[in-house]
Amino acid sequence: MNQLTEYRREFHKYPENGWREFRTSARVAEILTGMGYDVAMGPDVIEPGSVGEPERLSEEQIRQEMERAVRQGADPAFVKRTQGWPGVMAVLDTGREGPVSAMRFEMDCLPYDEPQRPGYRPCDEGYLSCNPQSVHACGHDGHTAIGLGIAAELMKRKGELKGKIKLFFQPAEETFYGAQSIVDKGHLDDVMNFIAVHIALSAENKPLPSHTVACGCRDFLSDRQLDVYLEGKAAHPCGASQEGKNALLAACSAALNIHSIAPHEEGLCRVNVGEIHAGVCANTIAPDAMMRIEYRGQKPAISEYAGQRIFDILEGTAKAYDLKYHYVDYGEVPAGASDYAMMEVVQRAAKKVPWFQTVYFEGNVGGTDDAAVMLTKVQQNGGIGSYVGIGADTTGPVHNPEFDFDEDCLQAAMELCVYALEELHGTDA
Amino acid sequence: MNQLTEYRREFHKYPENGWREFRTSARVAEILTGMGYDVAMGPDVIEPGSVGEPERLSEEQIRQEMERAVRQGADPAFVKRTQGWPGVMAVLDTGREGPVSAMRFEMDCLPYDEPQRPGYRPCDEGYLSCNPQSVHACGHDGHTAIGLGIAAELMKRKGELKGKIKLFFQPAEETFYGAQSIVDKGHLDDVMNFIAVHIALSAENKPLPSHTVACGCRDFLSDRQLDVYLEGKAAHPCGASQEGKNALLAACSAALNIHSIAPHEEGLCRVNVGEIHAGVCANTIAPDAMMRIEYRGQKPAISEYAGQRIFDILEGTAKAYDLKYHYVDYGEVPAGASDYAMMEVVQRAAKKVPWFQTVYFEGNVGGTDDAAVMLTKVQQNGGIGSYVGIGADTTGPVHNPEFDFDEDCLQAAMELCVYALEELHGTDA
Amino acid sequence: MNQLTEYRREFHKYPENGWREFRTSARVAEILTGMGYDVAMGPDVIEPGSVGEPERLSEEQIRQEMERAVRQGADPAFVKRTQGWPGVMAVLDTGREGPVSAMRFEMDCLPYDEPQRPGYRPCDEGYLSCNPQSVHACGHDGHTAIGLGIAAELMKRKGELKGKIKLFFQPAEETFYGAQSIVDKGHLDDVMNFIAVHIALSAENKPLPSHTVACGCRDFLSDRQLDVYLEGKAAHPCGASQEGKNALLAACSAALNIHSIAPHEEGLCRVNVGEIHAGVCANTIAPDAMMRIEYRGQKPAISEYAGQRIFDILEGTAKAYDLKYHYVDYGEVPAGASDYAMMEVVQRAAKKVPWFQTVYFEGNVGGTDDAAVMLTKVQQNGGIGSYVGIGADTTGPVHNPEFDFDEDCLQAAMELCVYALEELHGTDA
Amino acid sequence: MNQLTEYRREFHKYPENGWREFRTSARVAEILTGMGYDVAMGPDVIEPGSVGEPERLSEEQIRQEMERAVRQGADPAFVKRTQGWPGVMAVLDTGREGPVSAMRFEMDCLPYDEPQRPGYRPCDEGYLSCNPQSVHACGHDGHTAIGLGIAAELMKRKGELKGKIKLFFQPAEETFYGAQSIVDKGHLDDVMNFIAVHIALSAENKPLPSHTVACGCRDFLSDRQLDVYLEGKAAHPCGASQEGKNALLAACSAALNIHSIAPHEEGLCRVNVGEIHAGVCANTIAPDAMMRIEYRGQKPAISEYAGQRIFDILEGTAKAYDLKYHYVDYGEVPAGASDYAMMEVVQRAAKKVPWFQTVYFEGNVGGTDDAAVMLTKVQQNGGIGSYVGIGADTTGPVHNPEFDFDEDCLQAAMELCVYALEELHGTDA
Repeated sequence: MNQLTEYRREFHKYPENGWREFRTSARVAEILTGMGYDVAMGPDVIEPGSVGEPERLSEEQIRQEMERAVRQGADPAFVKRTQGWPGVMAVLDTGREGPVSAMRFEMDCLPYDEPQRPGYRPCDEGYLSCNPQSVHACGHDGHTAIGLGIAAELMKRKGELKGKIKLFFQPAEETFYGAQSIVDKGHLDDVMNFIAVHIALSAENKPLPSHTVACGCRDFLSDRQLDVYLEGKAAHPCGASQEGKNALLAACSAALNIHSIAPHEEGLCRVNVGEIHAGVCANTIAPDAMMRIEYRGQKPAISEYAGQRIFDILEGTAKAYDLKYHYVDYGEVPAGASDYAMMEVVQRAAKKVPWFQTVYFEGNVGGTDDAAVMLTKVQQNGGIGSYVGIGADTTGPVHNPEFDFDEDCLQAAMELCVYALEELHGTDA
Repeated sequence: MNQLTEYRREFHKYPENGWREFRTSARVAEILTGMGYDVAMGPDVIEPGSVGEPERLSEEQIRQEMERAVRQGADPAFVKRTQGWPGVMAVLDTGREGPVSAMRFEMDCLPYDEPQRPGYRPCDEGYLSCNPQSVHACGHDGHTAIGLGIAAELMKRKGELKGKIKLFFQPAEETFYGAQSIVDKGHLDDVMNFIAVHIALSAENKPLPSHTVACGCRDFLSDRQLDVYLEGKAAHPCGASQEGKNALLAACSAALNIHSIAPHEEGLCRVNVGEIHAGVCANTIAPDAMMRIEYRGQKPAISEYAGQRIFDILEGTAKAYDLKYHYVDYGEVPAGASDYAMMEVVQRAAKKVPWFQTVYFEGNVGGTDDAAVMLTKVQQNGGIGSYVGIGADTTGPVHNPEFDFDEDCLQAAMELCVYALEELHGTDA
Repeated sequence: MNQLTEYRREFHKYPENGWREFRTSARVAEILTGMGYDVAMGPDVIEPGSVGEPERLSEEQIRQEMERAVRQGADPAFVKRTQGWPGVMAVLDTGREGPVSAMRFEMDCLPYDEPQRPGYRPCDEGYLSCNPQSVHACGHDGHTAIGLGIAAELMKRKGELKGKIKLFFQPAEETFYGAQSIVDKGHLDDVMNFIAVHIALSAENKPLPSHTVACGCRDFLSDRQLDVYLEGKAAHPCGASQEGKNALLAACSAALNIHSIAPHEEGLCRVNVGEIHAGVCANTIAPDAMMRIEYRGQKPAISEYAGQRIFDILEGTAKAYDLKYHYVDYGEVPAGASDYAMMEVVQRAAKKVPWFQTVYFEGNVGGTDDAAVMLTKVQQNGGIGSYVGIGADTTGPVHNPEFDFDEDCLQAAMELCVYALEELHGTDA
Repeated sequence: MNQLTEYRREFHKYPENGWREFRTSARVAEILTGMGYDVAMGPDVIEPGSVGEPERLSEEQIRQEMERAVRQGADPAFVKRTQGWPGVMAVLDTGREGPVSAMRFEMDCLPYDEPQRPGYRPCDEGYLSCNPQSVHACGHDGHTAIGLGIAAELMKRKGELKGKIKLFFQPAEETFYGAQSIVDKGHLDDVMNFIAVHIALSAENKPLPSHTVACGCRDFLSDRQLDVYLEGKAAHPCGASQEGKNALLAACSAALNIHSIAPHEEGLCRVNVGEIHAGVCANTIAPDAMMRIEYRGQKPAISEYAGQRIFDILEGTAKAYDLKYHYVDYGEVPAGASDYAMMEVVQRAAKKVPWFQTVYFEGNVGGTDDAAVMLTKVQQNGGIGSYVGIGADTTGPVHNPEFDFDEDCLQAAMELCVYALEELHGTDA
């Protein structure tokens, strides 16, 4: 088994949800240090003040997660260096005048249980998730491994390169503040080239299989999340039920209406009521309900449309059921688009990697990634960037708990990135 | 403040949900022991084997609850005597030949948070619930106080009475197995007279205010509860969303359809989806949902109708969303009816209590109470019983978290029961 | 076949919906005239100005219905005498001082198609409905026959009776203005005794079978009907669908929420969305929807509760879908209750009819009848009345299109009414 | 006002729904005849046997519509020539060897009422629809005018052209069998070039304003329509309501669930419940409901997905409400895509028309058009075709009843088509 696959399986086995990536951060930092990098960690990488209230952990949770990381094999010294905030940055400073580039690798997992069934490779080959409600179903285990591979290769080539290359191992991509907290720290202020990779995207609206690559995507959706709290009134279902205000039924009605929001002709529009938690027991009309909602649009006008419709429905449902409601707004990850100039750099690099038999110039995100926050920042600097889709055969779609992929893509992705960075930072470039 | 009000407020302050009534049990046992009763506790009162799986606590939970009870002032010796099972029985054995009667007093609370607002008497006068998700919103604090009052009065009159009177301080009325576990222990096998009281029922379908009483109710509804688990399939809402199987929407649709079940012409039929918990995070199509459902009917045919409709809806919804489902059945508390003969005993007693200005012969439960389990058992023995409604002005309907009541009713209820028991057990009766 | 059965089957064969009862009116008037009554018809019976806009027919519709009546065998002279308004009144004026009583018999049918299947008696024995969307599924064919039987018997006994007896053959009971239009004409102003009968009611919430009778009902529900018009905006479902305002989905959501309105603890509460008509074609987001809603309550507070909830839902749904709405209010038929005094008169009469083996003192309407309008009027006069349930085995519940009944009940009902009127009007009473 | 605008306004004033286009057909035939064409009409243009049952008119309806056409100014001789089937074909046969091309112009309108409000140009300038439930809200009035303009220009140039050009004035585009019935007649068998135009499409997912054109679209959606009939059981809402089977609620639940069907990652997927008609009156639980459903997909797999989900929902809803259902399938208009080769022809033509300031190579249908039936046929012949979007400022989106457009586009569209046909049929081509 090659090194990247080994790394990936280790991270797969110990998945950590957003802002809990202490074991992963410590391992990444330990490995990078071993390569000769002088890593930054925790509050030196991310800006804690940028992390929104809804996703902050309590002191106690942080303490428990750090202890768990150590129990699961992390070096206590590196865990301690996080100061309670995951995130690692390694900078290859060639010492030579030249451009500043950045790459981003996510480390967080998704909050599902991984299935345990024979025939599913992580089960058969012993790298199933050890953590409940935690699974790498979005390929971030692979991304982290690719990042370590790139770091190793760059270090070998340091003498032939100019400028600086910043490698970010980012927490909390699946939530809202991972990339933002790094941007807010100022680390992207001088960056003019940006690349991120993602395993298993699409091109021409079909999943990218093994041996394919898409050099950039231009269809990022924005993403906004809300936790909506409906406040009704409890009553006994056989007593004065007429005095109840049924928050559970209100949530159900709102959810169906929200999922029935009409599409938008100008581009993709997606809404999802991802969670409902309503009621207190069987024999009481539910006095409260929480709905976790997200909506996305390919353009600001679409996102506004979806938001307007959702709030009309919430307002109307509250009226229909005589309820009050309030909500927590998680903020918005913006839409975005790769630059053709950088997609061409990637295209040239891809053609040098034999594993890629089919090179699509443009692919589809078909969703959201907070890489768009960094990409947009770099574009504001006058720079360029691309979000690259690495084809891989998989056992299920992204965000399905049973998501495993062809690990050969790791090496290929690493090679592609190294070639692209060589073009951007070569001393004869 | 009189003794019963003091007791009631103490119990109100330390409410405990079903099978967690360790502090209440210990205090009740301590007080009864102080009166001269030789109390039975825990497995000597209830049959642990009868308690259904869904409402059993883990060993660890029991340990924690017992510790909490001690922290909240319970005598550790009595807590220990529970052996992890709440419930207290005190028997007044007159030593004289005579009938065996039983009374039942519930001790459990409801799983809401009690509101903390000035103007609400428990808040103003310092007896607000100390326990989260726990509030006496069904008057059981008062019932327990009434039971202690009766115990005291009976002990004073022991010399003038014949036969035996069993006083049950029952756990877990709001769930399913409290009364059943006492019946299964055999304690009702020799009982020929049964009385239970409830604060704040109705008569002529209007709440009973202070200074009124209803001598019996004949409209108990059956009650059946199900926890239904819908199993769908996660997917990314912007990715292969067509592969998702949305258990959240299925639950929402089922809940609306269940609440739309048509009434039944033969009597009351009530359905409630009391809880829904669905989904894992905002950006995933919800792969699972749990629905907590109850349904009730005034006759077996009505209950069967409701059950049939609910399962048709679950089956159909599973089909519509291509889901699987399974469920946990909590069992059924039966319907039931007081006996006119015992209602007449209560009527005579009520007329001796000056506080009761209006005496309704028949009142309405309009719901379910597992007193029906004991009542039915006694009727099977050839005995008679009644479920008595004690009028009281209240600050909200039963099962509303802000439920406080006119405490003068406690003394009146106690007097009524003592008069009734005197008629049944008087040496010249 | 006896005369009443013959009458009933004739009316069954030619059913007519509200305000279209021209054939029935003409036949009733013809038969009554043949008995020696001097009948009043049309605007002499009902007050046309009282008939609400929503249920008025156009001149053209009236003309067509009158022509149809003649085609279906009505005497053109009597059809003409209706002047376009159905309704017949016959008064037995004994010429002797005495009380004034009234009885009411409905003539209208329901707007369903009658099933044509072998084994269904109207089909096998040749009295199936000849009119589309018209069927006597509420027993009014029988009521009219009973009224004719009573008229015949009273005429025979005219010499032994005192006072006046008014027999009303009423149109449009199933809609809103039948009884009201007669009351508004002033015909009930001097009436002190009122009786109406209905085949196939209930007692103890079970259908009354053959050989039973319930002497009065006290549980009339009020009934209010609304036609609600939702005004959205059309759009192409694949074009600018985001600009559509989907009135069809709004109506669907509102209907589910309306049917989910919680019961009321003080008595029966019933809501029904009886019709929805929405949209213009398959490939357009529906710009409009009409909902026909009714709600009923056993008490004014219940009716108000249901109305409040319905309008909250309409208002909220309009907000959720950004629609406007308006509605036509058909008015309200009130709740009501029979008088014990008249129920006792009926009880004595019932005991004289051998066919009635079981005589329930009180029965259940479990619904609405605009007999309550007349009953209430008589009660306001200081008089008394009763609404009597005539037991009959049936082939389906009331308002099911396949509703046939044991015709022996007709004779028994007629006898009961005659006995009751004899008690009220006997010269030695 | 130029000739094309005059034509368009005349057609706008007398809109006719599918298979009722007798006035339009007659006028088109009259005008073409005046130009020197020898037109074919009715069954010589379309194959009557191909017209599916659901959209056929009765003999009586056809007779009435033909009479109406005459009343509205159509020449009775041409109306008679339709033989009850709308549709006109004019062929420019140059007599010279050469390619066979075809163009298609739709004549039918949409079943809405046109708003009458000052400020809306058709109202202010006197060309509002005279026919109820009929409005040209999809630009077909303009398409027909463009077709007449092209016919006139081609006739002038006949001497400079070679081959044959078939101009189809097609009925029933908004329903299902218009284009199919022409293809089935064999008229496309020898056609190698196909062009159709549509006013007011989009490019880059934004509406095309005046002075723009899109040379072809490749995103036709398939379209399938179903009329679904749910069969429940009537019951009185206050009587034996438990025996009812509520088809109205079932339809409502199904509609919400159908509109909640998740998107498909491989392309556009659209569902619409366009109509619901349920129930018989207010006071009966609705025994039946009809739902008019359409669904579309950009690829066969998407259409299959939508169909599968819809039938799962229908099946599940029928189970949930214990109903039966059946449906009428209107068939499917296929998806399709313009050919780049023909788009290039159109692009060259567009650049010659000064009114077009912006020429998009590719535009969006974002929906369905049965031009795809003809286009696909021509492609099967080995030919090429394009579906061209003509930009125009409008007062509302397509399929909104208030849809008026910048009539200057008519002349520009006509010029574009003539230039394209000159390229294809020029004697020096």
